[in-house]
Amino acid sequence: QLISEKFGKGSKTVDLELETQIETLKDMQRKYANILRLARTLTSHFSQVVQTQRALGEAFAEQSQRNPELQEEFSYNCETQRNLVKNGEVLLGAMNFFTSTINTLCNKTMEDTLLTIKNYEAARLEYDAYRNDIEALQLGPRETTPAHKLEEAQKKFEDHKTKFEKLRGDVSIKLKFLDENRVKVMHKQLLLFHNATSAYFTGNATALDATLKQFNIKLKSANSSAPSWLEH
Amino acid sequence: QLISEKFGKGSKTVDLELETQIETLKDMQRKYANILRLARTLTSHFSQVVQTQRALGEAFAEQSQRNPELQEEFSYNCETQRNLVKNGEVLLGAMNFFTSTINTLCNKTMEDTLLTIKNYEAARLEYDAYRNDIEALQLGPRETTPAHKLEEAQKKFEDHKTKFEKLRGDVSIKLKFLDENRVKVMHKQLLLFHNATSAYFTGNATALDATLKQFNIKLKSANSSAPSWLEH
Repeated sequence: QLISEKFGKGSKTVDLELETQIETLKDMQRKYANILRLARTLTSHFSQVVQTQRALGEAFAEQSQRNPELQEEFSYNCETQRNLVKNGEVLLGAMNFFTSTINTLCNKTMEDTLLTIKNYEAARLEYDAYRNDIEALQLGPRETTPAHKLEEAQKKFEDHKTKFEKLRGDVSIKLKFLDENRVKVMHKQLLLFHNATSAYFTGNATALDATLKQFNIKLKSANSSAPSWLEH
Repeated sequence: QLISEKFGKGSKTVDLELETQIETLKDMQRKYANILRLARTLTSHFSQVVQTQRALGEAFAEQSQRNPELQEEFSYNCETQRNLVKNGEVLLGAMNFFTSTINTLCNKTMEDTLLTIKNYEAARLEYDAYRNDIEALQLGPRETTPAHKLEEAQKKFEDHKTKFEKLRGDVSIKLKFLDENRVKVMHKQLLLFHNATSAYFTGNATALDATLKQFNIKLKSANSSAPSWLEH
């Protein structure tokens, strides 16, 4: 059937509305995966910034001891770097929560619906093959086709029609739930990402901590280098 | 002479105060070089953060067009990232100015004094060699040493004494000027680094721009990826 379709032969069942929704989802998954990739890259670079700030803070602290004539200058630079490290770790917690949730959305939730879509597309191909078979038999000269062959084809056609229609229903429902879920998840994550980023980059440690509390993000350990943020 | 000294033979001219100053300088150069290395690493990681924020801002902008139900959420995240990029480029300007100036201090100014110190140390070695020679001759039996040989040794000793004392004076003066210069340069750079960092990480774009103006830092081009900040 796939080959007939490729050569423009055999008719194809097309559900335009569903096809559009499927194409939209596939495109959306690519775009969200791109945002996920960028957010992960940002988290990784930002984590290296925080690590370097920690080392720089220590170097400034040492020099504030050794350079009495520059004690004050080294000292306030040390304070600033240490403060940035402290808040940076909180922001990293928010960023890791963001990427982890988008990862689930992209690579688990969307992927699950795309798997149902693949099954639906395979069922559509089989259904159309049996449909075209039976149509060819019905169009052919009646005397050359034994009744039992027609019956058999009819039976196969009905079975695959049922299977196809069930999967079409599944896809429809999954797409609807996925879309509701996506909007809910992204609304929350984009709000978290924005509030945490804004709070950090305006030096508002209180608002940053409050944002993490609001989104129920717990920081595991301030010093572990592995992705270490619990999700809830 | 170096070998005699290593074996504990031959006397060595030691200027304790100068030696201490020289050791302090050598140690300080190592420490400042470490700060320079960290500041460069920080600049490089931070520059990658800014680049990723730029790409993420664009991705958010695209999604704010394509997701009407999340238009607002994507939109304000896009705004935030774009703002951070704009200010981030200004902070990078300050950081590049900081590293470039510390680099000059460490690898040109301090290095120049250290070269004079090397020459001084070589001259000290030669001076002590001729000093020990003539002392040996003067202690030896007078009749075995021809007058012209003694005179020649005396002449060489005087020459190297003059050279050594001149270089000792040079080192002393250079150390004094270097120290004054270092305190002046570091005071300015640490103030710049602190003010620019504070302004950026409190989201104070006006203060950030003002800091760069105060330190006469001009940003070459916002988009060039190469180190592109003019120094004055």
